[in-house]
Amino acid sequence: MAGKAQTKEFTIRFVPDGKRGHASEGTTLLQASQAAGIELDAVCGGTGKCGRCKVRPEGGFQILDSSLLSEAEVRANVVLACQTTITGDLEVEILPRSRIGKHQILTTSLGELPGPLSPWVRKEFHRLSPPTIGDNVADLERLRRVLEKDTVPMPLEALRDLPDAARSGGWSVTVTLTDLGGLDEITRVEAGSTSNRLLGIAVDIGTTTVVADLVDLVSGKILQTGSDYNRQISRGEDVIARMIHAEEGGADELTALVRETVNSVISTLIRRESEKGGRPVTASDVVAATVAGNTIMTHFFAGLPTRHLRLEPYVPVAFFRARHPKAYELGLATNPSAHVMLLPLRAGYVGGDVVGDVLASGIHRSDALNLLIDVGTNGEIVLAKKDWMVACACSAGPAFEGGEVSCGMRAMEGAIDRMRINDDFTTSYHVLGDGLPSGVCGSGLIDLVAEMYSRGIIDRKARIQGPDTDRIRATDGAFEFVVETKERLAPGATSDLVLTDADLQNLLRTKAAIYGACSTLLRKMGEGLEQVSSIVIAGGFGYHLDIERAIRIGMFPDIPREKYRFIGNGSLGGARIALLSDRGRKEILDIFGRMTYLELSVDNDFYEEFSSSLFIPHTEVSRFPSAGPERTYKEEPI
Amino acid sequence: MAGKAQTKEFTIRFVPDGKRGHASEGTTLLQASQAAGIELDAVCGGTGKCGRCKVRPEGGFQILDSSLLSEAEVRANVVLACQTTITGDLEVEILPRSRIGKHQILTTSLGELPGPLSPWVRKEFHRLSPPTIGDNVADLERLRRVLEKDTVPMPLEALRDLPDAARSGGWSVTVTLTDLGGLDEITRVEAGSTSNRLLGIAVDIGTTTVVADLVDLVSGKILQTGSDYNRQISRGEDVIARMIHAEEGGADELTALVRETVNSVISTLIRRESEKGGRPVTASDVVAATVAGNTIMTHFFAGLPTRHLRLEPYVPVAFFRARHPKAYELGLATNPSAHVMLLPLRAGYVGGDVVGDVLASGIHRSDALNLLIDVGTNGEIVLAKKDWMVACACSAGPAFEGGEVSCGMRAMEGAIDRMRINDDFTTSYHVLGDGLPSGVCGSGLIDLVAEMYSRGIIDRKARIQGPDTDRIRATDGAFEFVVETKERLAPGATSDLVLTDADLQNLLRTKAAIYGACSTLLRKMGEGLEQVSSIVIAGGFGYHLDIERAIRIGMFPDIPREKYRFIGNGSLGGARIALLSDRGRKEILDIFGRMTYLELSVDNDFYEEFSSSLFIPHTEVSRFPSAGPERTYKEEPI
Repeated sequence: MAGKAQTKEFTIRFVPDGKRGHASEGTTLLQASQAAGIELDAVCGGTGKCGRCKVRPEGGFQILDSSLLSEAEVRANVVLACQTTITGDLEVEILPRSRIGKHQILTTSLGELPGPLSPWVRKEFHRLSPPTIGDNVADLERLRRVLEKDTVPMPLEALRDLPDAARSGGWSVTVTLTDLGGLDEITRVEAGSTSNRLLGIAVDIGTTTVVADLVDLVSGKILQTGSDYNRQISRGEDVIARMIHAEEGGADELTALVRETVNSVISTLIRRESEKGGRPVTASDVVAATVAGNTIMTHFFAGLPTRHLRLEPYVPVAFFRARHPKAYELGLATNPSAHVMLLPLRAGYVGGDVVGDVLASGIHRSDALNLLIDVGTNGEIVLAKKDWMVACACSAGPAFEGGEVSCGMRAMEGAIDRMRINDDFTTSYHVLGDGLPSGVCGSGLIDLVAEMYSRGIIDRKARIQGPDTDRIRATDGAFEFVVETKERLAPGATSDLVLTDADLQNLLRTKAAIYGACSTLLRKMGEGLEQVSSIVIAGGFGYHLDIERAIRIGMFPDIPREKYRFIGNGSLGGARIALLSDRGRKEILDIFGRMTYLELSVDNDFYEEFSSSLFIPHTEVSRFPSAGPERTYKEEPI
Repeated sequence: MAGKAQTKEFTIRFVPDGKRGHASEGTTLLQASQAAGIELDAVCGGTGKCGRCKVRPEGGFQILDSSLLSEAEVRANVVLACQTTITGDLEVEILPRSRIGKHQILTTSLGELPGPLSPWVRKEFHRLSPPTIGDNVADLERLRRVLEKDTVPMPLEALRDLPDAARSGGWSVTVTLTDLGGLDEITRVEAGSTSNRLLGIAVDIGTTTVVADLVDLVSGKILQTGSDYNRQISRGEDVIARMIHAEEGGADELTALVRETVNSVISTLIRRESEKGGRPVTASDVVAATVAGNTIMTHFFAGLPTRHLRLEPYVPVAFFRARHPKAYELGLATNPSAHVMLLPLRAGYVGGDVVGDVLASGIHRSDALNLLIDVGTNGEIVLAKKDWMVACACSAGPAFEGGEVSCGMRAMEGAIDRMRINDDFTTSYHVLGDGLPSGVCGSGLIDLVAEMYSRGIIDRKARIQGPDTDRIRATDGAFEFVVETKERLAPGATSDLVLTDADLQNLLRTKAAIYGACSTLLRKMGEGLEQVSSIVIAGGFGYHLDIERAIRIGMFPDIPREKYRFIGNGSLGGARIALLSDRGRKEILDIFGRMTYLELSVDNDFYEEFSSSLFIPHTEVSRFPSAGPERTYKEEPI
């Protein structure tokens, strides 16, 4: 065996970034770029299956597999970074669509609290008598004396700062107390009076994006909002790929990556708030936090194993309904003694994000029948009425987040989010960021399918069939529709933007899963669509979605459009309510307690509903009375 | 400024160890030997003040200061390691007395518990129903169901192992529960039945030595006992030097060093217990811990600042009477979810070690008047009667632990622990380890002073005066007594073993501080020596001390000898009782509540009592009726 010392080291230059790195022989280009801090899109975790980490190398490299690349790409010297190893010095061009880039943040504007502003932390100002040789009890005892709480606990992390805080403030202190449910804990002691500075953080950990609000707990106002891509993405795009990566020894790495992301967002918010002027804000000022995430993200964030979530019967380690860990147990970049409420999860695929959605939507307070749909990599559906609430999850797949679709991408700069097909079969569209397009995001894909159906390009089974136009072409016996030609795309494109037969089948399955899940819930509970008083749409679709077209392809139920309501990022909204409102926290436990989980993966009704939804709009056309292929609906300008 | 890359590196060989190391130009020999894992005695923390880190280098070195060395030492090429820098390759001989070597461990044989065996942890065996698709609640919920505790908490660290433990044991588990005072917490879940394996650790953190017992919490038996030098020693011998080091930026280092020491002892005990055969013991098996230490050590161990303990009015950060941190908060090498009880401290110089002494001695349960004396680097005295208990501390100084005395050393291999002066003024003695002597430890020094007084070598003020013998000589106008000549000492000695006038004054002050503190307590409480029903001696002196001679020099009160009782390491004994007995834990709070602290440093009575004790045996000879200079007492053979 060759010794380690004999492995050759090569220099790599990344363009257009201009970054340089070193890597040893045999390293893949994906590993080398990750090491250089360039995050490439690698849905499959670098296993050569998703074909998304496209780069153009020049110099010493060896291609292991190029079967996922088109002929044009091979001619243009494009390779998959994960399927190419380094054999010498080289220069690597990162193609724009391969990069995990700037994206559109989805926050929510929702703000109504279900009761008075009541975070679980508060501040009290106290004057202590200075110690003397005749009264030299411990600093903590002196503090307990004025608090009139004989055994109020104070964690070691907070105790560490007590002596200096007490003395530098001339024995005037501001004490932050955390209410543990009737009992208090001392979370922090500061010198002098700081009573008007009490901050908290609400975090939504999505599979794709982490969003957080820095909140003023005195006024209830959002001071800063920010987000970042979940750094786990480079280890697999969906939760399944990440759980597999975890089981192959990457669990600690995934926990570290998601915590790094959350901490980087928090630090940015704190920095931005400090830059507003006035007294600088520090991590120690953030004394309470709430975190909502899907079950898998919550487990990764808490450092818990996910193995049993991946396999039937999909068992979480904990629901997080009772205990709040402290920030230092999670390595959170807030005050280490801050309590962190993880929004409770209900099942393997119904997480704290869904509980947050419900809380933000308020449907748990309604006597009427309401349906909530959160479409992400997984679709979560909640059907609620006065006395009950039933939730289910369907594996919608990453199609609407840009995965498993040739022209798909996430809702970020360069993504087409709205689209029409013109009479000549060319397309008109809106691009996020207003530049040239690189791909099509979820809402754009829904438009695209609806338009293709309406123009007769696809049949009810979403198969490309006609008409005769150069926008439709056959490759290896399969058809594809040209969304846009290479010349009109953002620089770096190596081929036309197309939607293939295979892509259409992915999209069909995704929409069928969501509609099928909705139908199954209604059927199980013996309710009809006509009873539904509102459908709440949560998640990324809120800002871009054309609800009319989503109904026309049979993704959402065909009910009066005015019954649809969008709440944006309900997960973050719920986390913020939990941070600010005692009533909200009680309601969360109520939601948790009332929510029944229905496992669809083994449900015959769901299988039936799903199968009959694999048509546009549905096998039973009568379910979509107002949604034919005719372009009868109002054309909103692009 | 020269770049780092230009600093020269040299090779150092340490003899007789045979170890090799590398160090850059300008490094001191003390730093280089520490880096090589050789712990040299450096009372002063390497500031050139204590003159104890003597070594003999050969090769490239430069002496910065040799003013603390004798002419003979300089002629013998001896240098102070901290005052000598490296200028080239060299060989360094470590002189035996400079080394922190093997030492005599003081544990205690005391074992009676004040009530039934009742640790705060227990195990329960349970069978869980395996999850199914119809019953896929979280693992923790499944566990709570069989425990019939709806919201019993379980820390993240323990949760991490729950899924695998439950499954690998076929859903039969043993649950370790920690009683938090009426409420339980799940500390650990193991596969299958392990009910007979429940381990705890009791630790005594001394300024000099860390001792620990690995205890079987099912039987109450001590499985293993072990100890190590407190690795802080190389950063200063006494607590004052260490607090100064902490304030100069070394606080984190001191916390790390004491935790390293504790963890190294714990790991050794676990390894030794595993080597007994049977199922291997792991750190996770240790699910409860108690730690007793003086106030400063407890603060360092907990990572709390010590600055205000060093300066008047000597205020601790916390008493640790209410909250037990968890092992992971302290970085303790046990189960991370184990609760760690730090024995409460009462004042800056009355720590958990003294509370432990009292608990182990049982004097808090007696109706009579009892005195407890723990002589270490600081002397702690407790006077107790049915309704009250008063404690004080006196800065005894390191004289009895080998510091500030020319021939002094700790009670370790090579130390003279018992000594007689013969008619011809030569000495007879016993050496720990039975080899040739290197120095004299505390009990030997008491013998030495008593013998010098009895032989008329010193007067009542401990000044060397006569008789005419070559064992007494004058150097620079000061006298010294030759305890043993160089030729009869352990190899490596560079000079005779002597006791100087200055040494005698140090020893006189130490004994006066202890006796003065005892007298002050009695005087304050209006009690007389004749009322004292017992004097309990705790700490290192127990095994070696000649009580008759200690009384003769006026260190301990002159009461009937049978009233003296030795409990050995009461601090460790108290920690063990706290680990094993609920009644013991309650008694600790009772001791804490009853103990009044008397600050001697500003007390006029103490100043008076101390001053009149600066005689042998005392200014008022009548206080020592049975202790004249005559050698009337029974001569025990050496």
